[in-house]
Amino acid sequence: MAKELKELTKRSENYSQWYNDLVLKADLAEQSAVRGCMVIKPYGYAIWEKIQRQLDDMFKATGVVNAYFPLLIPKSYLSREADHVEGFAKECAVVTHYRLKNAEDGSGVVVDPAARLEEELIIRPTSETIIWSTYKNWIHSYRDLPILCNQWANVMRWEMRTRLFLRTAEFLWQEGHTAHATREEAEEEAMRMINLYGDFAEKYMAVPVVKGVKSANERFAGALDTYTIEALMQDGKALQSGTSHFLGQNFAKAFDVQYVDKENNMQYVWATSWGVSTRLMGALIMAHSDDNGLVLPPKLAPIQVVIVPIYKNEEQLKAIDAKVEGIAAKLRSMGVSVKYDNADNKRPGFKFADYELKGVPVRLVMGGRDLENNTMEVMRRDTLEKETRSCEGIEEYVVSLLDEIQENIYQKALNYRNEHTVAVDTYEEFKAQIEKGGFVLAHWDGTPETEERIKEETKATIRCIPFEGDTTPGVCMVTGKPSARRVLFARAY
Amino acid sequence: MAKELKELTKRSENYSQWYNDLVLKADLAEQSAVRGCMVIKPYGYAIWEKIQRQLDDMFKATGVVNAYFPLLIPKSYLSREADHVEGFAKECAVVTHYRLKNAEDGSGVVVDPAARLEEELIIRPTSETIIWSTYKNWIHSYRDLPILCNQWANVMRWEMRTRLFLRTAEFLWQEGHTAHATREEAEEEAMRMINLYGDFAEKYMAVPVVKGVKSANERFAGALDTYTIEALMQDGKALQSGTSHFLGQNFAKAFDVQYVDKENNMQYVWATSWGVSTRLMGALIMAHSDDNGLVLPPKLAPIQVVIVPIYKNEEQLKAIDAKVEGIAAKLRSMGVSVKYDNADNKRPGFKFADYELKGVPVRLVMGGRDLENNTMEVMRRDTLEKETRSCEGIEEYVVSLLDEIQENIYQKALNYRNEHTVAVDTYEEFKAQIEKGGFVLAHWDGTPETEERIKEETKATIRCIPFEGDTTPGVCMVTGKPSARRVLFARAY
Repeated sequence: MAKELKELTKRSENYSQWYNDLVLKADLAEQSAVRGCMVIKPYGYAIWEKIQRQLDDMFKATGVVNAYFPLLIPKSYLSREADHVEGFAKECAVVTHYRLKNAEDGSGVVVDPAARLEEELIIRPTSETIIWSTYKNWIHSYRDLPILCNQWANVMRWEMRTRLFLRTAEFLWQEGHTAHATREEAEEEAMRMINLYGDFAEKYMAVPVVKGVKSANERFAGALDTYTIEALMQDGKALQSGTSHFLGQNFAKAFDVQYVDKENNMQYVWATSWGVSTRLMGALIMAHSDDNGLVLPPKLAPIQVVIVPIYKNEEQLKAIDAKVEGIAAKLRSMGVSVKYDNADNKRPGFKFADYELKGVPVRLVMGGRDLENNTMEVMRRDTLEKETRSCEGIEEYVVSLLDEIQENIYQKALNYRNEHTVAVDTYEEFKAQIEKGGFVLAHWDGTPETEERIKEETKATIRCIPFEGDTTPGVCMVTGKPSARRVLFARAY
Repeated sequence: MAKELKELTKRSENYSQWYNDLVLKADLAEQSAVRGCMVIKPYGYAIWEKIQRQLDDMFKATGVVNAYFPLLIPKSYLSREADHVEGFAKECAVVTHYRLKNAEDGSGVVVDPAARLEEELIIRPTSETIIWSTYKNWIHSYRDLPILCNQWANVMRWEMRTRLFLRTAEFLWQEGHTAHATREEAEEEAMRMINLYGDFAEKYMAVPVVKGVKSANERFAGALDTYTIEALMQDGKALQSGTSHFLGQNFAKAFDVQYVDKENNMQYVWATSWGVSTRLMGALIMAHSDDNGLVLPPKLAPIQVVIVPIYKNEEQLKAIDAKVEGIAAKLRSMGVSVKYDNADNKRPGFKFADYELKGVPVRLVMGGRDLENNTMEVMRRDTLEKETRSCEGIEEYVVSLLDEIQENIYQKALNYRNEHTVAVDTYEEFKAQIEKGGFVLAHWDGTPETEERIKEETKATIRCIPFEGDTTPGVCMVTGKPSARRVLFARAY
């Protein structure tokens, strides 16, 4: 059974090492020669492409269009919005020169000191500033609004400690930036997008999420409100998986973007921004996978069904090839992505282990006896259950099985989350519960000071104030002051 | 007729100004606040997305997979391949620091001198070096080959004179990087991709191209051979629209990438790279458009058919809406992208001018009399011809008209190119012909010196040594030395 492929660290031994092993061994990504920047390998990128395509369709269905804005941002732009600069300007890649020249000693190339930029440029950590400086030219009248632009782009934040997909210096993401005539419209848009992200996470990634609003401490730098979707990983830590920001008029004021309304008055424009990144890959990997490797939701799996033949000789292989060809063709015509792996340089056991590691949802195997009996062995990756079935109608069965797997891994993740979400009343209970991992619902007095103290003492943060759930008032577990409702705490990635 | 929209400079007056006007007024792109970097606006980006989607499908059909490699490249990597550094290392954006800090005088942010990188990083001008440093870890045995990777990415070259789409500091592109066991396979791959680019240009962009090989002077820095597709613009200048490079073992040697062959010998790997960029947008715009605006090939038009109602009152509009709804739905079911523009804040004349400017291939108009007669006015953008047709079967007619337009603009561009491709024998004839513009076929002695002299004296370069066409030997028009065959000259973008 090709043990060499399966040598993943077990989750129970070292969850963090298991994650790293899995990302590397399933050929998803690896570290590059540049500190903190990853290489996304073809198999990992194929999953990202499925995520992109689906989200892009969902964005466009709401009227969003794509565009592209510059990679580099003039340094001075970052200072325009006071909160924004505090949050983003510090750890970023700075371009200071635009030319290299040959070293005089012939040792290679050196920076040409004569080619120093008058103003340094920053590699975008996020694009609010460059986009709002552009919107200033696009927006004059209420007729120019709303603007609903998205871009798929790379961004860079000089992170000190990086982990593949979860926290990297360079990452890929989409960032939507919308401009609206009224506060109401902008708030509605920010809410529409967090709901869209939630739907995507649950229906496509099969990852249940808690939607809510961030506390002031955890807000995006420059936002009035940050909405978030929070997922729970198998090690009991939370992963912020997408955010949508109501930016008020902060960027419009910073870049002087005004419009003439129907009554001929000048008004500042209202803004939102929202994004998800390759971090979703981390959520996808951690939410479902097991000690045998990846478990992918069928809707995002690059290969949904793999078919492996087991044969004694060339003649038998040809007969199996012929039989499988029809089944694969029918599955493809039903919209299923199928790989038939009859390569003769790897043993079936090696293939089985490899496709398990890569999380292919359904494996079909046909051997000599199957050929005689007109059967195949069907293995589902989520439960690893096997059964032998007649080839008659097997395509319809596989299609329904893919749906069942999608639903099953969602339910499994939901059950896990429900079992690991606990309401507590005292700070002592809280501390004990946070040590065990999972989401903890507790009363908090609403102040940044108390939030900060909890974080220092327990490493737990407020993941969000949920939109739904118990809204009964109470008293803060730490200070005893009034609390409007329980909020969601966890240790987080 | 909404003249304000149509105020394009005429091509005959100032072609270059016409191009700039068109890019701006058709909402394709604009300059950004960062020198040489453009903003690709939603309408321009929608065309680029069509280009991307089609090319991506064509790449994948040949077995290519997508991946993603880092934006930043360690400075020392550029020096590894001697020719490559000469070609690329010089004009590029250099990251020297990774942090900003608040200025002591409160004036904003300044570069933190304590956060200087040990080794400077370069924003990729192209990714051969970072990719081959990665391939070193991926390739061990002949079983690991071939590797056929592509990435869609932004790159940056610090150009001094920039023009929207044609030459910008940052641009979007795809870059394929393949690794092969043998020279033959790599050469075949490089050729396969230039043929793919040629097919794409002709069948989708409706732009005829000459395929051929570059002279040594015009080769990619680090390549043994560069293949190119060359298109002729309406001003008689050539535009290099895509290149594919046979890189030999240069990058494998620079990054020590070897594999064990079937006989257990160590061998250096053979390489290709190939790319097209947002420059294709420039070719697309210049090849077909006219003094009224863009003319888009139907296969790449974001909106293929626009329908505009002309109505006297709300009641009539409702009746037209109802009628158009069925026609639009049927067109969409036939795979046509349709926009029904019944917005009441713009006059029909304004809409007509705007959609002409934006190059929508087919316009359908329904007025009150059309409604009575069950007819519509059909206008085709390429010829501006109008006709009134019955609504019976109009959907099938529109679909066939789209095909006809695609073919017609290709033929028109091909005729233009044929009329502007001239063979000459003497250098005097050559100089006179180059002044007139167009492609000039002439004999050349094959030396870089003669090529350089021709360039200095006439501003014409060898666009390529065509794969096809007249291969009769002759004598060089400049030196009288033997020439293997005529080569293709032009002034170029």
